[in-house]
Amino acid sequence: MNIKITGTGSYIPPVVKTNAGFKDYTFLNNDGSKFENDNTVIIEKFKAITGISERRYVGPEISSSDIGFFAAEKAINDANIDPETLDYIIFAHNFGDVKHNSIQSDILPGLASRVKHLLRIKNPKCVAYDILFGCPGWIEGVIQAQAFIKAGIAKKCLVIGSETLSRVIDIHDRDAMIFSDGAGATIIEATDQTGGILAHETASYTYDEAFYLYYGKTNNKAVDSETRYIKMEGRKIYEFGLKHVPSAMKSALDASGEDISAVKKIFIHQANEKMDEAILKRFYRLYRTEIPEHIMPMSINKLGNSSVATVPTLLDLVRHNKLENHELNQGDVIIFASVGAGMHINAIIYKY
Amino acid sequence: MNIKITGTGSYIPPVVKTNAGFKDYTFLNNDGSKFENDNTVIIEKFKAITGISERRYVGPEISSSDIGFFAAEKAINDANIDPETLDYIIFAHNFGDVKHNSIQSDILPGLASRVKHLLRIKNPKCVAYDILFGCPGWIEGVIQAQAFIKAGIAKKCLVIGSETLSRVIDIHDRDAMIFSDGAGATIIEATDQTGGILAHETASYTYDEAFYLYYGKTNNKAVDSETRYIKMEGRKIYEFGLKHVPSAMKSALDASGEDISAVKKIFIHQANEKMDEAILKRFYRLYRTEIPEHIMPMSINKLGNSSVATVPTLLDLVRHNKLENHELNQGDVIIFASVGAGMHINAIIYKY
Repeated sequence: MNIKITGTGSYIPPVVKTNAGFKDYTFLNNDGSKFENDNTVIIEKFKAITGISERRYVGPEISSSDIGFFAAEKAINDANIDPETLDYIIFAHNFGDVKHNSIQSDILPGLASRVKHLLRIKNPKCVAYDILFGCPGWIEGVIQAQAFIKAGIAKKCLVIGSETLSRVIDIHDRDAMIFSDGAGATIIEATDQTGGILAHETASYTYDEAFYLYYGKTNNKAVDSETRYIKMEGRKIYEFGLKHVPSAMKSALDASGEDISAVKKIFIHQANEKMDEAILKRFYRLYRTEIPEHIMPMSINKLGNSSVATVPTLLDLVRHNKLENHELNQGDVIIFASVGAGMHINAIIYKY
Repeated sequence: MNIKITGTGSYIPPVVKTNAGFKDYTFLNNDGSKFENDNTVIIEKFKAITGISERRYVGPEISSSDIGFFAAEKAINDANIDPETLDYIIFAHNFGDVKHNSIQSDILPGLASRVKHLLRIKNPKCVAYDILFGCPGWIEGVIQAQAFIKAGIAKKCLVIGSETLSRVIDIHDRDAMIFSDGAGATIIEATDQTGGILAHETASYTYDEAFYLYYGKTNNKAVDSETRYIKMEGRKIYEFGLKHVPSAMKSALDASGEDISAVKKIFIHQANEKMDEAILKRFYRLYRTEIPEHIMPMSINKLGNSSVATVPTLLDLVRHNKLENHELNQGDVIIFASVGAGMHINAIIYKY
């Protein structure tokens, strides 16, 4: 028995927010002080490091569970399965449904329950739960689906990653420009076909790193508010990613028994273009191998960092030939890898 | 190989809120109208149905992850394990950390990461994630731990259920009196000892039932606020529990191969004393058997409904002989069962 991804779907929200859209924002340092440079320079530097030129936001009537549902519908159709045959719906997110103009995370009921409700699935044996695991949540959901299949308690699972980070950004924080909205979904099935998940690696670094991403107050000290927003220690995360992601990918690849030369695509969480390039470089250096051309599909330029949605969306785009210079062929070894709040890291080695 | 609970711990918060503490509250119907009866009568009726005479709240400086950590420390000591040997920390909750006087759920980073940080565990291979699954979250966490052990990716897991419902209640809603705070934790291990988890059953009913528990506005229509609180359709939940929990327990018991006469204790989620008694009655009626004496330990009278914390706390109390007329002996078959937001139901058959 092998465990394969038999369907994918994604939802790319319609509202395009370009970098120019931030030019009139009042960005401040964490201590509330002003930047020396004006916004044009700040945005230019931001673009040079992250690679982000625009990002996507959902419309005001839409929440994370809605777009998770949209992506899920597509994945179900793509896999051509009857949704009533699903054993699990696993929904990875980190903020729940945050309605437009609200500061509250609505996670009652859980988002997996909402999606199951929207899919009109009646079968009570289809277990719907939410996992919180930072940006690596969708990959971890796939790892959990795999465990349930191996343990004999599931055959078919829907794994969703969906997030609306536009609802939790501090408009006085430059990092607000990184975050975006999106949803990706996949069907994971036990199958007799060759290939599938070969190995995985997960790590949680919490001793010093637990609060590198956290819920904090606005940078605007003039505002007397307890309201919290997504906050990050960008420099520390960059160094952390570089230090730990390549070795996690190597552990997983070595466990899979596949050679580095067999790897055809690396789907890595899109948080920062420079960081992803540096991770790739270090990964191949561990094998003393040149980086092959077109190995790492990138979506960050147009889609920003949509957290848990990034990797499944990227996979969906490549799978359906929507990213130039990227395609997948049967037998290709591919790697999924992510890093994010927790701080968590994971990687899956997969034979397409 | 068997899978057993090798340690338990719980945290019962220090602030005792008695029913009398609600006598000056202004309770209103969902539509904002006043009740015909005064609070003395409302509280008396409430006590008669739910069995709750007091409940526990945490102090103002404390959040859900803190008390989850307190319970986890006790469980680790009880199991006499080195925390560095844990493969998983699974934290079940439904609202995250809601600070005193805040309306925001803080789930960045996840609560499992916070507990791992507080436990000073360095081992990155110890995977720390959160599960949202309504009140049945702790039981579901145990089922997931079992799956990871069976799949060969874990040997030792810490499963925590912790909640501070005092932070999300609407003071104009009678149902506020139901909810309380608490935390319970357990160590789940692969072992060569006899007994352990024999069977389980999980069901998610979302078609009509997804929003029986939900995040809604205050009953006080004079307040113009978008703030959401925990809300429930009590009557529907009561009927739902009666209809589906006994059959889920029976499915699990039948799958375990154990006879109804072997069952020595039933640890059932404490949401409503009358509901629990009715569930027990229906369960035994399915086997045409009399209900044995002292079969169902109850904590609701003094502890209220602390959601995910209820079942592990109850187990911890009985295991350490802190509940009169209740003890556990090797070989006893016991049942864990829960029902809650989602709407989810689950049950585990366990040989002590």
